[in-house]
Amino acid sequence: MTVRVGVIGVGMIGQDHIRRLTKVLSGSEVVAVTDVDLGRAREVAEGLPGGRVHDTGQDVIDDDGVDAVLVASWGPTHEEFVLASIEAGKPVFCEKPLATTQEACLRIIEAEVAGGRRLVQVGYMRRYDPAYRALKDVVRSGAIGGPLLVHSRHRNPSVPEYYTREMAITDTAVHDFDVVRWLLDEEIVATTVLAPRRNRHGGDLQDPLLMLLETESGVLVDVETSVNIRYGYDIQGEVVGEDGTAALGDASPVIVRRDGTVAGRVPADWRERFIRAYDIEFQEWIDTLAAGEDPTGPSSWDGYAAAAVSDAAVEALNTGGRTTVELRDKPDLYAKEQ
Amino acid sequence: MTVRVGVIGVGMIGQDHIRRLTKVLSGSEVVAVTDVDLGRAREVAEGLPGGRVHDTGQDVIDDDGVDAVLVASWGPTHEEFVLASIEAGKPVFCEKPLATTQEACLRIIEAEVAGGRRLVQVGYMRRYDPAYRALKDVVRSGAIGGPLLVHSRHRNPSVPEYYTREMAITDTAVHDFDVVRWLLDEEIVATTVLAPRRNRHGGDLQDPLLMLLETESGVLVDVETSVNIRYGYDIQGEVVGEDGTAALGDASPVIVRRDGTVAGRVPADWRERFIRAYDIEFQEWIDTLAAGEDPTGPSSWDGYAAAAVSDAAVEALNTGGRTTVELRDKPDLYAKEQ
Amino acid sequence: MTVRVGVIGVGMIGQDHIRRLTKVLSGSEVVAVTDVDLGRAREVAEGLPGGRVHDTGQDVIDDDGVDAVLVASWGPTHEEFVLASIEAGKPVFCEKPLATTQEACLRIIEAEVAGGRRLVQVGYMRRYDPAYRALKDVVRSGAIGGPLLVHSRHRNPSVPEYYTREMAITDTAVHDFDVVRWLLDEEIVATTVLAPRRNRHGGDLQDPLLMLLETESGVLVDVETSVNIRYGYDIQGEVVGEDGTAALGDASPVIVRRDGTVAGRVPADWRERFIRAYDIEFQEWIDTLAAGEDPTGPSSWDGYAAAAVSDAAVEALNTGGRTTVELRDKPDLYAKEQ
Amino acid sequence: MTVRVGVIGVGMIGQDHIRRLTKVLSGSEVVAVTDVDLGRAREVAEGLPGGRVHDTGQDVIDDDGVDAVLVASWGPTHEEFVLASIEAGKPVFCEKPLATTQEACLRIIEAEVAGGRRLVQVGYMRRYDPAYRALKDVVRSGAIGGPLLVHSRHRNPSVPEYYTREMAITDTAVHDFDVVRWLLDEEIVATTVLAPRRNRHGGDLQDPLLMLLETESGVLVDVETSVNIRYGYDIQGEVVGEDGTAALGDASPVIVRRDGTVAGRVPADWRERFIRAYDIEFQEWIDTLAAGEDPTGPSSWDGYAAAAVSDAAVEALNTGGRTTVELRDKPDLYAKEQ
Repeated sequence: MTVRVGVIGVGMIGQDHIRRLTKVLSGSEVVAVTDVDLGRAREVAEGLPGGRVHDTGQDVIDDDGVDAVLVASWGPTHEEFVLASIEAGKPVFCEKPLATTQEACLRIIEAEVAGGRRLVQVGYMRRYDPAYRALKDVVRSGAIGGPLLVHSRHRNPSVPEYYTREMAITDTAVHDFDVVRWLLDEEIVATTVLAPRRNRHGGDLQDPLLMLLETESGVLVDVETSVNIRYGYDIQGEVVGEDGTAALGDASPVIVRRDGTVAGRVPADWRERFIRAYDIEFQEWIDTLAAGEDPTGPSSWDGYAAAAVSDAAVEALNTGGRTTVELRDKPDLYAKEQ
Repeated sequence: MTVRVGVIGVGMIGQDHIRRLTKVLSGSEVVAVTDVDLGRAREVAEGLPGGRVHDTGQDVIDDDGVDAVLVASWGPTHEEFVLASIEAGKPVFCEKPLATTQEACLRIIEAEVAGGRRLVQVGYMRRYDPAYRALKDVVRSGAIGGPLLVHSRHRNPSVPEYYTREMAITDTAVHDFDVVRWLLDEEIVATTVLAPRRNRHGGDLQDPLLMLLETESGVLVDVETSVNIRYGYDIQGEVVGEDGTAALGDASPVIVRRDGTVAGRVPADWRERFIRAYDIEFQEWIDTLAAGEDPTGPSSWDGYAAAAVSDAAVEALNTGGRTTVELRDKPDLYAKEQ
Repeated sequence: MTVRVGVIGVGMIGQDHIRRLTKVLSGSEVVAVTDVDLGRAREVAEGLPGGRVHDTGQDVIDDDGVDAVLVASWGPTHEEFVLASIEAGKPVFCEKPLATTQEACLRIIEAEVAGGRRLVQVGYMRRYDPAYRALKDVVRSGAIGGPLLVHSRHRNPSVPEYYTREMAITDTAVHDFDVVRWLLDEEIVATTVLAPRRNRHGGDLQDPLLMLLETESGVLVDVETSVNIRYGYDIQGEVVGEDGTAALGDASPVIVRRDGTVAGRVPADWRERFIRAYDIEFQEWIDTLAAGEDPTGPSSWDGYAAAAVSDAAVEALNTGGRTTVELRDKPDLYAKEQ
Repeated sequence: MTVRVGVIGVGMIGQDHIRRLTKVLSGSEVVAVTDVDLGRAREVAEGLPGGRVHDTGQDVIDDDGVDAVLVASWGPTHEEFVLASIEAGKPVFCEKPLATTQEACLRIIEAEVAGGRRLVQVGYMRRYDPAYRALKDVVRSGAIGGPLLVHSRHRNPSVPEYYTREMAITDTAVHDFDVVRWLLDEEIVATTVLAPRRNRHGGDLQDPLLMLLETESGVLVDVETSVNIRYGYDIQGEVVGEDGTAALGDASPVIVRRDGTVAGRVPADWRERFIRAYDIEFQEWIDTLAAGEDPTGPSSWDGYAAAAVSDAAVEALNTGGRTTVELRDKPDLYAKEQ
C-alpha cells in the first residue's frame, strides 16, 4: 500500500521532505500540499503529478485522498494542525517543535490519549542516525556498565542573524535533550546553564553555552553548544559508564595525508551529517503506516518532555540557577517507548 | 514515471535487489520474475502485488510491461539475457560478471555498439560507495598530486567450501580491478600474482594473494586478498600521489573504551559494508531510466575490461609470471566514462 | 657540572626518581638520602655508590656535598623541608603538594620572595608531557582562536581503599587544575563540584565527579574524575576555541584488527602514561641547575594556586554550591611563568 | 661504572650521538674523538670536559681511557675501525652500514667469531622504537595468528640532490629490511623491485619504488619507498596474520579541528620520528656495557644480512627480475638474536 501524504508547509524543510518522500524513499506519494504562501504551494505542486493544492492546512487534513499528514509549517501553527489531524484520526508527522509551549503539548497529549491510539510522531531525527543507534546498542548491551555521565557537543559553523540566545536551547540543544532521554531511557529532572566568555564570531550572542542536565537516576549530562565555531558541523556524544565509555566515531569517509597532517573531514552542515537519519526516519514512518500500525517514533510525550526541559533551561539561563523540570504523569499510551 | 523492472534470477542476490527496488528505493516496481527454479520464482512473486511469473528469461524480456531488465541469474547465463535485452532495446542491469569470458563480453559490446546506444550496466557497486566516491573526489581535486601507487586490501572473514583459488581473482579481486580503473580513469595493462605462505584457516586454498597491477600511465597497484582472516570484512584503499596520499577511512560509527582498548567496529560482511552502495547504485539507475536517459554506470566495456584483467591475473597466478592485458580498441560509445 | 642531589623520602615515588636520576638521565648523581624509615634509606643507599644516609631531612639539606634537594616524603613534611632548603639557599624539587594548606604555601612564598630568587619547583609533571606541550603550542599559535571552554577527563582504573572523596580533588583533579592554569596562562577564580550517581566499583565513594572551573577571562572548564572506571588510565583534554578545537590524541603505538574490532591500547596506569613527562621534567630541572640558573618549572606560586583551587573545590563539594578562589597578589618573582 | 666512549667521526650524526651520550643519557661520557677533519674534531672536543682529540681512529681505539668505540665516520671507513675495535677487544657501536660490501661484513663476522664474543652493534635504531616494539609484542603474542604478509611504507618529504636511485635501497629501504627480519625473526631470501611512474618532485630519480621481499617461511613483504612525497616523514608498517593484523599507529600528540578537518600531525623528519628510538638504543647499549655484558642489539650478522638483501635488491632494480639472497651459514655466536 502506498501511503498518500499531505504536506502542510512547503518551505525549505517541507520541500526537502517532499523530495525525500517522492524521489528517495519507497512506498509513499505526496498528493496534497498547502502553505501560508499559496503561490509557493502551487509551484511545489507542479512538480508532483496529480498533486493538489489546498487553501488551508485543515483542507489538507480533510482531503479524503490523504492518508497521513506532514506538518512542516511555522512552529506556532503546529498545535492547530496536529490537533486537527488527531481529530480527523489521521497519523501526523510534525517537525519539531511539537508545539511552542508545554501547555500546547499537553493539549495534544490529552487529545491523543482521548482518541486511544498514537497518531503523532515528532521529528527528532537523531534517534534514526546509524551512529546514535549503534551508540545506544552499546549502552544497552551493558558493555560499559551502567551510565553515569554523558558528554554531548553540538557545534555549528555559524548561525543566521535572527538567532537569539534562547535558540541555543530551544532550537539547538533541544536535539541533545531528546537524544539523551532516548539514549538513557529516562527523564531529565533538572537543568543548569553556564555561560563562558563569548565567541567573537557571535557578536553579542551568548555563545558558547554549557548546559548541565540531571536525569531521574542521577546521570549527569553536559551539553556544549558552540554555534559559531566555523570549522564545521560537529556532533559528538560520549556515554561514560562504570566500566568504560562509548562515543560517536569521527566517521570521515576519507583520510588525507598532506602538508604535514593526516586529516579527516568534518561535515559542513546538518544536512550532510543527518541526511541518512532523515531518510531512515521517514522510511520507517511510511513502513509502519503502510503496515497499518501506529507510529513508534518520538511521541507527543517526547515532544512535551523536550519542551519542558527547554523551558527549564531557558529559565536556568535567565536566572543563572538550577531549575527543575516538572512533568505531568505519563499516560499509559506512551508507556512503551522505542 | 515508475520504472517497471523484470528480474531474471531470484536467488539470494536477486531477492535482495527485489527488496531494494520495492521497499527501499523510490520510482520502481518489480512486475515480472523468473528463475531456473520456477517454484522459487512463484514464491517470490507472491510477495509482489501483480507480479507475473514467466517460464524463461526471454519471456521476462519480451513482457511488454517490463521497462528494464535485471539479470541476477547464474553467471554462465548472463550473456544470453544481456544480448536478448539489447535485442529487445531494453535497458539491462547485469550483476557481475557481465559474462564468463572476454569473448562473450565482446559479443555484448558488439551488439550494444550496433544498436547505437548504451543499454547495459554492470553491478560494480563500489563506484557508488560514498567513501570511494569521496576518495575519487580527492584524487581528482589534485590535492595529492598525480597518482603513483595504489594499495588495495580485500579481506573476508571466511569463504565457502566451494571457493577455489581462481575465485580470489575472478570473484574477489575483480572488484578491486574495477574500482582501480574507475579511480584512476585508465586501463590496467599487466598483472602479476604472488602467493605467500597460506592461512591455516583456508586449508589447501592459496590464501592470501598479493596481486600487482600496472596501468597505462605507469601507476603500480598492489591488491591484497585475504579471504579467511576471521576478524571481519575489511576493504581498504590508499592512493599514493606526488604530494600526499588519500585513503578510505575506518568509519566506525561508535568508539568503545573498554578492557584496556579504544576500539571501533569492523563490518561483519559485505552486506554491512556496501549496503548503501547497492542502494545508491540502483536508485541512480532507476532515476536515469525514469528520466528517459541511458545508464551511465559501469558499462559493457567495464565488464569486458574487468574480465580481461581477471583472465590475465588467472594466467599470472598459474604461470607465476607477469601477464599483459590485451584490450580491443575502445568503441566511441564508451568514450565518456563516468 | 654534575648536579649532586639529596633525596628526602625514599618510598615508591622517591625510589623511582632516584632510578631516574641515576640510571636514565644525564648530569646528576644522588649523593645523600634519608627517610622516616632509616632502614629503608640504608637499603636504597646501598645501590648508590658513595651515597650517604642521613638521620634527618635537615641533615640532607645541610650536607655540603648536596647541590639540590628532592623532597619526596609524606605531604605534611613538605613545608618544613622546602623552607629549610630555601633557608640554606639550595634549589629544591618538591613533589606535589607543595604543602598541605594554603597558609603553608604562602609561608614558602614569603620565604622565597624574601630570598629574592626562585629556588622551588613543584612536581606537576603534566607540563612536561609532549602531548600537553603540543596542545599548548596549538592554543598559543592562535590556530583555534581564543579559548572559550576546556574539557578535561581524568580516569583511573581503580583507587586504593584509603582513597577518600576529597582525594578526587586534592590528589586527582589537582593535576587538571594545574595543567589548565598552565595551558590558559591564567588563574581559576571559582569552582563548582557536581556528583552524579555512583560507580558501583567505588562502593560508598562519590565517584565520578564533574568539576566546573571558571578562569579570570571567563573560560569555563569541566573536569571529569572517574577513578574506578576499570578500562585503563585515560587522560583527555580538549580546548574549545572560537575557530576550532585542539585535543590530546589517542596515541596508541599499535592498532590491532581482531575479532571484529580495530583497536588501540589505553595506558594501564599513570606510570605508563607519564613516564616521559617525569623524565623530561627532571632532565630540564637538572640542566637548568647545571647551567647555574634558577628553576623555571611549576613554582611555589603554582603550588599555592593549586592548593587554593583544591580548597575551594573541596568546599564546593561539601556545600554543593559555587565557591570562589581568593588568591593573594602575585609577587613579581613569579611574574614570568613558563 | 661510567662507560667512557671514544667517537670516530664527528659530523652531524656523530655530534648528535655525542649530545645524546653527554646530555641526555645516563652512565656514559665521551672521552676521545677524532675526525677526518681534525679542526672539526677539536671544536667538538672543546665542548667535552677533558675530551681528547686523536689524529686517527686507530688512536681512539688504542686510547686506554676508552672503554667502547662509536663509529660514525664515512661508510667506507667502517670496516677498518670495526675490525680494529675487535682486535683491541673493545665493544664498538657502528652506525649503519656495518660495511659497504657483504665481503667486508663477512670479514668482520670472521674476526668477531674468532674472538669468541660479540663486540659489535650496528645502528638499526627502529628495533628500539616503542611503537615497533609494541608491534613485535603483538605479533609474538599470537593475537593475530601466524604472519603472512607485511606492508611497509617509508616516506620522506624530500631527499638531497646527491641521492641516487640505489640509495632508495641502500640508505632508505635498508631500515625496512632490518626491521622486517627482526619483526619476523627470520631471513629474507629473495627480492624484486618495481618502478612505477615517477614523482615529478624527484626529477630523474626513480621514485617511488615498490620492493617485494620473500622470507624463509614464505611471508611476503612489500616496501614502498616514496622519498619526495612532501607531506612529511611517515613510517608505516602492518603485519597481516591469519586471524587479524597489527599496524603502527598514527601517534599524533594532538588532534586539531579546524577549517573543515579533524587532523593529526605527521612528523617532519626522521629526527622527530625516531629521536626516542636513538635514545633508547644508546641507553641500552651503555647499560649493557656498564653491566659488563656484551651487546645484544643488531649484530654483525644483522649488518651482513642487511647488506646481502640490499645487494640483491640493487641487482633486482637493475635487472628488473627476482633476485635471491644467498647468506653464509650463521655462526653460533649469533644464534640467539634479540
